[in-house]
Amino acid sequence: MSRAISDIGPAMTAPEHDFLAGEGRALAEEIFERVRELSPDTEGVNRPAFSPVESLVLDYLDEIARARGLITRRDAGANLIIARPGDTDADARCGLIGSHVDSVPQGGNYDGLAGVATAILTLIALERDGVETDIPVRAIALRGEESACFGLPYMGSKALFGLLDEKALAARDARDGRVLGEAMAGCGVDMERVRAGAPLVDPQSLAFFLELHIEQGPLLIDRNWPIAAVTGIRGNIRHRNVRCIGEAGHSGAVPRYLRKDAVVATADLLMRLDEHWQTIQLHGGDLVMTTGVLHTNAANDGMTRIPAEAAFSFEARSQQATTLRAIEALVHSECEIVARERGVHFVFDEPVHTREAFLDKDILATLLAACEAQDLPAETVPSGAGHDAAIFSQAGVPSGMLFVRNRNGSHNPHEAMEIDDMLCGARVFRHAAEALAQGRDAGSCAKIK
Amino acid sequence: MSRAISDIGPAMTAPEHDFLAGEGRALAEEIFERVRELSPDTEGVNRPAFSPVESLVLDYLDEIARARGLITRRDAGANLIIARPGDTDADARCGLIGSHVDSVPQGGNYDGLAGVATAILTLIALERDGVETDIPVRAIALRGEESACFGLPYMGSKALFGLLDEKALAARDARDGRVLGEAMAGCGVDMERVRAGAPLVDPQSLAFFLELHIEQGPLLIDRNWPIAAVTGIRGNIRHRNVRCIGEAGHSGAVPRYLRKDAVVATADLLMRLDEHWQTIQLHGGDLVMTTGVLHTNAANDGMTRIPAEAAFSFEARSQQATTLRAIEALVHSECEIVARERGVHFVFDEPVHTREAFLDKDILATLLAACEAQDLPAETVPSGAGHDAAIFSQAGVPSGMLFVRNRNGSHNPHEAMEIDDMLCGARVFRHAAEALAQGRDAGSCAKIK
Repeated sequence: MSRAISDIGPAMTAPEHDFLAGEGRALAEEIFERVRELSPDTEGVNRPAFSPVESLVLDYLDEIARARGLITRRDAGANLIIARPGDTDADARCGLIGSHVDSVPQGGNYDGLAGVATAILTLIALERDGVETDIPVRAIALRGEESACFGLPYMGSKALFGLLDEKALAARDARDGRVLGEAMAGCGVDMERVRAGAPLVDPQSLAFFLELHIEQGPLLIDRNWPIAAVTGIRGNIRHRNVRCIGEAGHSGAVPRYLRKDAVVATADLLMRLDEHWQTIQLHGGDLVMTTGVLHTNAANDGMTRIPAEAAFSFEARSQQATTLRAIEALVHSECEIVARERGVHFVFDEPVHTREAFLDKDILATLLAACEAQDLPAETVPSGAGHDAAIFSQAGVPSGMLFVRNRNGSHNPHEAMEIDDMLCGARVFRHAAEALAQGRDAGSCAKIK
Repeated sequence: MSRAISDIGPAMTAPEHDFLAGEGRALAEEIFERVRELSPDTEGVNRPAFSPVESLVLDYLDEIARARGLITRRDAGANLIIARPGDTDADARCGLIGSHVDSVPQGGNYDGLAGVATAILTLIALERDGVETDIPVRAIALRGEESACFGLPYMGSKALFGLLDEKALAARDARDGRVLGEAMAGCGVDMERVRAGAPLVDPQSLAFFLELHIEQGPLLIDRNWPIAAVTGIRGNIRHRNVRCIGEAGHSGAVPRYLRKDAVVATADLLMRLDEHWQTIQLHGGDLVMTTGVLHTNAANDGMTRIPAEAAFSFEARSQQATTLRAIEALVHSECEIVARERGVHFVFDEPVHTREAFLDKDILATLLAACEAQDLPAETVPSGAGHDAAIFSQAGVPSGMLFVRNRNGSHNPHEAMEIDDMLCGARVFRHAAEALAQGRDAGSCAKIK
């Protein structure tokens, strides 16, 4: 039934026959170069969700895959499915590896595409190595993950599981006026099923979903890990606009005890929350916290005027729902204290909550075992950002993710991933997929250590 | 030579003959009403420095004074001088009471004008009471104190002491294009002497300068004092624009220890400075500190982006030059610590320093004695804002100030001074001026307790 990953060991093929080290590496470079050419922007790349450019990229990948002896088809979501020769029963239970091809405007070339390239390389490597699996392994190149166009993310994977409602489908691209539902129809998505909220794929038919993605943060760079397995995707609580209301006054004429200074009060709040962050982290909690926007009121602020108002955003992310609940409560309790002590009050907009997504523990163990077998650091990190894998996971598909080391963050032309690091990920997927696709039941991997 | 203020006691006239309580009160109301009518704005009043409206107000006050038997003239600075009958030798050594008539746009009616009204009432009260003094006491209605038009304050009093240089005289009113030097000439100022940097008045010929002004802060309201004597005018150090430079990053993907968050670093700095403020104040130091402007970079800030930049203003004011030097050094030492601890750096613009002005200790004592004699609280406060009295004081004229209780700050239409509070000030000036004008040498008042 299941084989211990340690039985697999490092790639058995001699270096001259190692697809990933030779031809695979060249293919990856070719994919990145050609797709970059297909999706130019004034700076970086632009592959809008459900756009002709996105379709063009899928067509190109389709061609690449067929040229390497793989077979291809489009699913009901108009995503590209790549399969090994003979894997012609589209409805057969399978394992999927993939990510998205769309990008933000002036985006980097690796966000999404690196995961698709890795999936294609993994599939070719399995084929070249003649690996036989009980269930087929397929690559998927997804559409529409980025929220840049329609203001909502994961449209491609959400459509697969019947999760796009009418409101979402009516979303409009502010740049060019496209409406999501129409743009999807134009790409060949089965809109009748999407509009009915019907899943385009049976989650039960998916034994696993693996996604590789560039890390959007600097942790792997800092730790010197080429890749790391992702434990889960942080949930978050967000306030777009919190206002601290104090009282204006002459900066020279109002003594400290009579001030209602909105800037000092906001600074006080932020430092109190920073202390809680340290304590929570010290006690083992997972948390990141950001006030990315902070403005006094430009209509009436001034160097010699005590600020009457400061408006700021607040976001906290954690893998633990309890930690998010705690920090949300702490924000309010600290606001009450600061309000009392500094004579201000805080006005909150409605919070937006996004729940955390756990990735599959057994798949995580399989990925870590494959890392060890490849003499790679077997390390884990949480994901601060959302990914298609979270949608698959929430739909009940056992899912796993790898992050690849990447400099300069994502969503900008300066993304800097090394292809060698990505190939480490492909090696791990090559061996993990082999192990995961041996059982009819993905749960069987639980015993792999 | 000198009389103890306690010898003077409360007003000797019976209430029905008390000018300030009856006719004086009515005159004050008339002045405020008529001057408000002369200087309308869309909201509040507008009496631009060295403008026809300002001249119109001086003409009106001139008329009011002459109608009450006083004599009037214009000095070389085109300010209105009001004197008692017979006081015709303009160059005779005298004591002055006054303030400015100009206002900011959409300003309040009392900032400046209350001091001029008080000076006129005081002079009439001295005349009605038949008080004889060794040196004459005069009222002065000054022009051009507010910086709203030409970007620099105290132009009227600075001109008196030869302190306006060519650069200042070339300052332009951004609203209507007027140039200061030309506007002054248009009002009849002796520009030949002003441009030569020659004083228009010999400071030695001024035995004292008394100014009443509405308090710009809420301290007198809070303490329930109708008036208070001013100890001195705080100096200040200002930075219009300090920048904290961090590093942008994905709000979900960068752990705390790798962040270079410009907002948190700025909040940290502000709280550190707030702690120093508390300590300095606890130890008896005089200090107010304000960051009135604080903005993340609107061009690239966002709720899910670690802020790379925060720009803010900084101002500290104190009566003690040493305290200002200390806080300036503390700002920099704390910035170094925060920079090291939080991976940011701070970029400072050139600081602007304004030195503190001490008001005359003997005049202060005389004012306090007069308060006590009038059964008024004999209290002192520092002034956070600059005033014409600071220019007189710096020029070597022994100067004293009273603040009048005022709600809602200054420079806005909601200034709320009670005329009865102002009349308390007029009473105190009436008796203090009587005492101060008895000696040829203002220093003789040193012995008055």
